[in-house]
Amino acid sequence: MKNLNLLQVELGYHFSDTQLLELALTHRSISSSNNERLEFLGDSLINHVVAEHVYRKFPKISEGPLSRIRAALVRRESLAELGINLKLGEYLLLGTGECKSGGRNRKSILADAVEAVVGAIYIDGGFEIAREIILVLYSAKFSAMSEDLAEKDSKTQIQEYTQAKGLELPIYELESVSGDAHQPIYHVVCRINGSDRVGRGSAQNRQEAEQIAASLVLSAL
Amino acid sequence: MKNLNLLQVELGYHFSDTQLLELALTHRSISSSNNERLEFLGDSLINHVVAEHVYRKFPKISEGPLSRIRAALVRRESLAELGINLKLGEYLLLGTGECKSGGRNRKSILADAVEAVVGAIYIDGGFEIAREIILVLYSAKFSAMSEDLAEKDSKTQIQEYTQAKGLELPIYELESVSGDAHQPIYHVVCRINGSDRVGRGSAQNRQEAEQIAASLVLSAL
Repeated sequence: MKNLNLLQVELGYHFSDTQLLELALTHRSISSSNNERLEFLGDSLINHVVAEHVYRKFPKISEGPLSRIRAALVRRESLAELGINLKLGEYLLLGTGECKSGGRNRKSILADAVEAVVGAIYIDGGFEIAREIILVLYSAKFSAMSEDLAEKDSKTQIQEYTQAKGLELPIYELESVSGDAHQPIYHVVCRINGSDRVGRGSAQNRQEAEQIAASLVLSAL
Repeated sequence: MKNLNLLQVELGYHFSDTQLLELALTHRSISSSNNERLEFLGDSLINHVVAEHVYRKFPKISEGPLSRIRAALVRRESLAELGINLKLGEYLLLGTGECKSGGRNRKSILADAVEAVVGAIYIDGGFEIAREIILVLYSAKFSAMSEDLAEKDSKTQIQEYTQAKGLELPIYELESVSGDAHQPIYHVVCRINGSDRVGRGSAQNRQEAEQIAASLVLSAL
């Protein structure tokens, strides 16, 4: 295995117990004492830290879109990219067959190892340190995400548009509610007086239905 | 709404920002500013804290069974029970229709509210406090679990059995490996010399295959 000091420099963290880091890099193809348990732990921690980040970064986005944003960030391909950035493949302990068949570059193995390394940092250094390292690992992805997703929401955009054009402000009306009493679906219409543009949106959440309606009016303007 | 001080006593936590607790108790049937975002956050935190607990409590259990144990602990019914213990239904802010149709006792609403309250504690008090409260909320479930699951693993049990009976120790042999090179499945047989009891186990992990094989011999003894 390559010198673990380099990896620790790359991670920005020096382990008290280097055996934990070794375990995190040990694939099941080489030992029954491998990184799968640490992967289980790291997976849950990454999920949480990424959830908190998107929760704070997008204070106006509702739970459904937040879940989708998080899912994109923690999916196998995303985690594997973090592993590639860390050159984690060079440090992995793999069985001979796995090694020959290209295991060092396999996305699933890299993604699992990233989770396991994070799990090992959590055990070794605690929550705050592990959280900081996850945020650093994800910093490029978080920046890219903000450009795609942190756009103003549709209701804000349409309000600014109408003000700029000297039009009346958009009106949102609840047309109907359908579905079960405990899981209602709101049907909302958005219109601008003096314009024949109308948008309709439906969602389990009235606010989200209004956003959809506004986005349809926007796209028609 | 019932006096939130009682709930805070029950939780063992007093909020700096009581509005966060109110938000955590606000169902979407009454306001578009509701507890769904806090639920998203609390869900991920509960997942992680429970993952860490089972990781530490069962140091010999592999990732597959750990995931199943966690899934049982964080499923809707389990979370709803925590909500019932906290009498959370009495504090919920619900729309009239939801209230009339029994929303205060609905499992999905109670489970979501537990997650949201935990998310609110995390925002208000930080990780360590939220973690402690989750562990307290789950303490009865964790104790019950330990009786069911913290049993000695099958390999240990069978070893103790053979020693007690003066038999030879069990032998584990790898009979074959199937599946893809990067996702092998191990087929293991467990036998005891001087006994005709044989057990076969298959798993992606050799250790787990041995446990399965051992458990089959045990159940036949």
